[in-house]
Amino acid sequence: MTKVMNVAMIGGGFMGKAHAMAYASMPMFFWPAPAIPHRKVVVDMTDGAAEEARRRFGFDEASSDWRSVVERPDIDVVDICTPNNVHAEIAIAAAKAGKHIICEKPLARTVEEARAMTEAAKAAGIIHMVAFNYRRTPAVALAKKYIEEGRIGRILNFRGTYLQDWSADENGPLSWRFQKKIAGSGTVGDIGTHVVDLAHYLVGPIAEVIAMTKTYVTTRPIQQGGVDKLGASEKSADAERAPVDVDDEVVSMLRFGNGAIGSLEATRNAWGRNNFITLEIHGTKGSIHFNYERRDELQVMFADDPADARGFRTVYTGPAHPYGGGLWPIPGLGIGYSETKIVECFDLFSAIASGKQPSPNFEDGLLTELVADALLRSGETGKWERVE
Amino acid sequence: MTKVMNVAMIGGGFMGKAHAMAYASMPMFFWPAPAIPHRKVVVDMTDGAAEEARRRFGFDEASSDWRSVVERPDIDVVDICTPNNVHAEIAIAAAKAGKHIICEKPLARTVEEARAMTEAAKAAGIIHMVAFNYRRTPAVALAKKYIEEGRIGRILNFRGTYLQDWSADENGPLSWRFQKKIAGSGTVGDIGTHVVDLAHYLVGPIAEVIAMTKTYVTTRPIQQGGVDKLGASEKSADAERAPVDVDDEVVSMLRFGNGAIGSLEATRNAWGRNNFITLEIHGTKGSIHFNYERRDELQVMFADDPADARGFRTVYTGPAHPYGGGLWPIPGLGIGYSETKIVECFDLFSAIASGKQPSPNFEDGLLTELVADALLRSGETGKWERVE
Amino acid sequence: MTKVMNVAMIGGGFMGKAHAMAYASMPMFFWPAPAIPHRKVVVDMTDGAAEEARRRFGFDEASSDWRSVVERPDIDVVDICTPNNVHAEIAIAAAKAGKHIICEKPLARTVEEARAMTEAAKAAGIIHMVAFNYRRTPAVALAKKYIEEGRIGRILNFRGTYLQDWSADENGPLSWRFQKKIAGSGTVGDIGTHVVDLAHYLVGPIAEVIAMTKTYVTTRPIQQGGVDKLGASEKSADAERAPVDVDDEVVSMLRFGNGAIGSLEATRNAWGRNNFITLEIHGTKGSIHFNYERRDELQVMFADDPADARGFRTVYTGPAHPYGGGLWPIPGLGIGYSETKIVECFDLFSAIASGKQPSPNFEDGLLTELVADALLRSGETGKWERVE
Amino acid sequence: MTKVMNVAMIGGGFMGKAHAMAYASMPMFFWPAPAIPHRKVVVDMTDGAAEEARRRFGFDEASSDWRSVVERPDIDVVDICTPNNVHAEIAIAAAKAGKHIICEKPLARTVEEARAMTEAAKAAGIIHMVAFNYRRTPAVALAKKYIEEGRIGRILNFRGTYLQDWSADENGPLSWRFQKKIAGSGTVGDIGTHVVDLAHYLVGPIAEVIAMTKTYVTTRPIQQGGVDKLGASEKSADAERAPVDVDDEVVSMLRFGNGAIGSLEATRNAWGRNNFITLEIHGTKGSIHFNYERRDELQVMFADDPADARGFRTVYTGPAHPYGGGLWPIPGLGIGYSETKIVECFDLFSAIASGKQPSPNFEDGLLTELVADALLRSGETGKWERVE
Repeated sequence: MTKVMNVAMIGGGFMGKAHAMAYASMPMFFWPAPAIPHRKVVVDMTDGAAEEARRRFGFDEASSDWRSVVERPDIDVVDICTPNNVHAEIAIAAAKAGKHIICEKPLARTVEEARAMTEAAKAAGIIHMVAFNYRRTPAVALAKKYIEEGRIGRILNFRGTYLQDWSADENGPLSWRFQKKIAGSGTVGDIGTHVVDLAHYLVGPIAEVIAMTKTYVTTRPIQQGGVDKLGASEKSADAERAPVDVDDEVVSMLRFGNGAIGSLEATRNAWGRNNFITLEIHGTKGSIHFNYERRDELQVMFADDPADARGFRTVYTGPAHPYGGGLWPIPGLGIGYSETKIVECFDLFSAIASGKQPSPNFEDGLLTELVADALLRSGETGKWERVE
Repeated sequence: MTKVMNVAMIGGGFMGKAHAMAYASMPMFFWPAPAIPHRKVVVDMTDGAAEEARRRFGFDEASSDWRSVVERPDIDVVDICTPNNVHAEIAIAAAKAGKHIICEKPLARTVEEARAMTEAAKAAGIIHMVAFNYRRTPAVALAKKYIEEGRIGRILNFRGTYLQDWSADENGPLSWRFQKKIAGSGTVGDIGTHVVDLAHYLVGPIAEVIAMTKTYVTTRPIQQGGVDKLGASEKSADAERAPVDVDDEVVSMLRFGNGAIGSLEATRNAWGRNNFITLEIHGTKGSIHFNYERRDELQVMFADDPADARGFRTVYTGPAHPYGGGLWPIPGLGIGYSETKIVECFDLFSAIASGKQPSPNFEDGLLTELVADALLRSGETGKWERVE
Repeated sequence: MTKVMNVAMIGGGFMGKAHAMAYASMPMFFWPAPAIPHRKVVVDMTDGAAEEARRRFGFDEASSDWRSVVERPDIDVVDICTPNNVHAEIAIAAAKAGKHIICEKPLARTVEEARAMTEAAKAAGIIHMVAFNYRRTPAVALAKKYIEEGRIGRILNFRGTYLQDWSADENGPLSWRFQKKIAGSGTVGDIGTHVVDLAHYLVGPIAEVIAMTKTYVTTRPIQQGGVDKLGASEKSADAERAPVDVDDEVVSMLRFGNGAIGSLEATRNAWGRNNFITLEIHGTKGSIHFNYERRDELQVMFADDPADARGFRTVYTGPAHPYGGGLWPIPGLGIGYSETKIVECFDLFSAIASGKQPSPNFEDGLLTELVADALLRSGETGKWERVE
Repeated sequence: MTKVMNVAMIGGGFMGKAHAMAYASMPMFFWPAPAIPHRKVVVDMTDGAAEEARRRFGFDEASSDWRSVVERPDIDVVDICTPNNVHAEIAIAAAKAGKHIICEKPLARTVEEARAMTEAAKAAGIIHMVAFNYRRTPAVALAKKYIEEGRIGRILNFRGTYLQDWSADENGPLSWRFQKKIAGSGTVGDIGTHVVDLAHYLVGPIAEVIAMTKTYVTTRPIQQGGVDKLGASEKSADAERAPVDVDDEVVSMLRFGNGAIGSLEATRNAWGRNNFITLEIHGTKGSIHFNYERRDELQVMFADDPADARGFRTVYTGPAHPYGGGLWPIPGLGIGYSETKIVECFDLFSAIASGKQPSPNFEDGLLTELVADALLRSGETGKWERVE
């Protein structure tokens, strides 16, 4: 009989929604499931917020005290969906309590925090995972498969972008994402780390970076209310403004440990780009292109195709591709954000069931933090910076 | 306090999965929810299958006897996810028992069945819905909004296609979808009705049709096992074959009641097309284009744009668009099949909560059956056929 | 030594420009050229217009008397770039004078005219060609190659569209293209025939059609001046209007002689579509898609590709593809309208040099007229109409 | 009466073809023309080659002695279509002889050569132009118009790529393009300079760069014959190989004088990319995207569009856009490589007729060389390098 595992989810915002959906849905998709997640306790800032999250997200219990929750003997997995500033404290407590952990990205505000979390997790012998869900997109996993099977040859270069526009409006509110003390950094940590994770997944460790970082909107209206408002403008013309102390954009170049080169660009100020995560990879035998805004598709070109029929193929992922057995019966029915989170949940519980660490785990998350840190340092120094 | 409503779901296949996910997830997305669906009983063909479906889809109880289930006083909503041949019998029984009903598409195998179901539902005074989920895609709902607000003017024409390739392989198994006695028809009912529903939603009632229908693969290997296998080839070279008695493809022209003209094409034999539902609508003031394979996007062109900046806009749906408040916080995060089903579930329970029939309800489903019937008749006669 | 051949071009409008460019450029591209066209005489309505055309288009001489020109012994080729109403008279005279002829499309206003022209051309033993240039697009010729080599198997269906928007504005001037006595028909002849030609080229003869034809804009401002104004609105608000007696749009279905089915749609009133010639062809072993608005590319899908790398390939045409040796040294440099006309010119002079009729010649053009006539007849009768 | 001007064209390869076509065609498109170019003399390496070029390209005379030709009193314009190694010598001689000059890009092999050419041209008071034709694409000129009119606000960043694959095959021949002594540099000069020119045109002067340069294929088969073979493999398996001493790829970051930042990437080893020149520009009020492989289109997004209809517009260029009056009567007929060269020719003779220097002239070309030089220097030093 498939084991039921109790989850305590800390945080009831956008990510709480996505994770709760995945806990409920994962076994419906991947059956027999590696384990059946049970939504046991949800934690939010206040008792009222927690109770509302409980009803909304279908948990048994609500709490506003994460400390006691993570120590409860009936909890198997702790899920950290909070802003970045409390990732470390919660994760370390959960690890000490021997709970498996999934933590939203980025792993932490700083390398120091990430290192402490990783050490705690390793010391505790738990399963740990960082929620870089975009590598769970079947098309990205298909790219990984092509690369591992040598079908595009040796990788020469990698170009990754993550472009959004929700902070392009200078009257967008000063949410926690614009405050260094909570977020750690701006675009670098928030979305740049997704690209770093994808680069590590598909190409290998980044060894050296050089970056330009920019803050275009230097003050923003102070946010009314606690919700994470992406992009919605505060209406009051006379809202008080406060400084932004994080980066809006990063443009950078990369050197990988295996000799490949690359570039990484991330911004939340690119008008018209929404969730524009693009990857372009050139190898000695072919090329790959991916755009998350059209995430059902992977573009792949094989150099050994006949001369008169050579070109990028648009492959719609489905049952013949990674994770396809668990998702929908034909390609094109639709991979959405939900499906990426359901796959992530499947990989988490597969890891727990097998006792084998998933990827990206906290060590991978720490490596990503090291790259993020090098990007931010290079943004200051203007020089190539080693990762460690 | 939001009301909890008990659902009995009949059928545990691909659609059962999609609906179960939606019951679990809908309130997480649309909160406060109009009602909270509770997965009470799932019914499948055998006790064993039902019990497995119960565990997989998170229902309280399992049963292999739909008749007794639809009469249970604790059931509020009956969800029909079976093959087409039992839609009518179940729906009529459920209506007589006073249950609200959501029925998978197409509503029935024949006009007669659809009419009987509609009459039963109306007589019972219940809420009834047909699960044409593609009109729940936010981009399609946005097209509807533009049209209703007059932003593309009077509609001149409509072109709808639904192209798939899962039956192009002549060794694909003879599932129930290729058998008239179970499915009623082939492509016309299976996917053509989706396009008819979209045409009715966006343009208005179709008055007259002329069609060509084709069966390209006239025999198929008899299917081993009961599952609905889309596209997977039976491996045994010596599998016994049996005749296909439904259509593989329909090409047709349409006249709408309001004077617009159009065309409709559907096939499951178009190599390389997966779930290629496309709409192109030309009005006196602009045009709309949609392709479900890139369903986050709606293409719209406004004729009164300045001469030097005129062209189709690619609008990624998000919070500023229909259903946007309930889905994801920025465009491009991803609309998948899951999201269309979550929206459908929201509309169903909104209808139940408000006591106002949703669209498409059984009357709309009957109208779609009448068009399907006219398409099939015209496929025989080669002449224009009136819808009724 | 490559032979120089003298060309008399009748008509100095948009098409005169395109043809003159091709005469000058063809040997530069296809070298050694089959013959070197020499721009000998250009004919226009008045001496002044002809003299201006001479200087603009680089001809030796100018004339306003086409009758005497086509009989000149030093003329080898007559090029008919006039409105449709004088195609027949000029072509018959030129044929009688023993000149090779290229005639702009459509071949004539009516089947009767086309038949007379064809008979005259055949009687005279000359080389004759109709200027359906779109089949000269390398990507279209590549589609032909795939089909002929059996790479997409037996053709099941064909879907062709030609959508423009230059007549969607109801204040666009009443040019000759809206007058039946000059143009013969509207959209059917002007652009629908291009699709018919492409269907004949790629699939084979059309045997039967059924059509809806529509005139959306029933009166237009009388045009000031003689130029062929596409889409430009007459500015005067009080311009006198006169009736349009031709079709704005045709929607139709096709049956080919070889059993394939299809559809054809053409309109000049589709806001946002410019020169949107699309082809979609499904075969038993693959599919082809083409969109002239992205004419450097052919989309092709081969069903026997490996299951995990199956999808439409985007093939950019270049040296490895038809006409590639004569055009540009790498794909993607750019196929424009010019290049299609240069290829057409190459095929014309190759035919003259070899003494083998090109395709489409007048017989092909007549066949296309027969289909156009059947479309127009069916637009009246509402019934399937045989092509002859 | 429009003035006729005599052209001497030096070099009869791929570029000679493109230029000859433009001389013949330009007045046909842009009428009345600023001047009528007359193809007077063509120069090639040998008398035989020159005579063949004369016949092929329609010149009056042939010569193998460029020195005497550029001094002929009847020559008005000297057109330099040779490999890069003789640009300087010819241009300086032509300038001294008082001829107007158009020189193929890049202007020279080195900054020193470019500076000498620029000084000679300025001293002579002639009109001078560098043939960076891609900025003549109407869609690129439209981008310039939007930017100049402030429609996308202040430019924040620029991302330019030029990706090709014709040198990805390690058996592609060692043409002059792989030899430093002839080409000056590899990808940087050959195609990277196009992107630099586009950046200068649309954004402004680049002040500082940092680059990585790579040579992936370090030896190639020695080329048989003199033609510029792009991409074609030498068939002989035992062809002798020689070293490549230029760069295959450059990845770089840019700082503009006006504060904008950016990146530039160019490679001839990107499998599947043909002439993939892409531009992405983000401003404070909107964004622009361009891909030369789909060069009829410009993508533009205006931030002040209504919230429910915001997205990139795909604008097909035509009469309402730059150069539209001279090209084709409706958008989508097709902008090819020919059309870019015809526009370039129009701008050259407009400059000559008006006495106003065109852009890019030799000063602009020198500036581009300075950036190229900084890129190559930075490829060595790994540091930010100032331009000058």
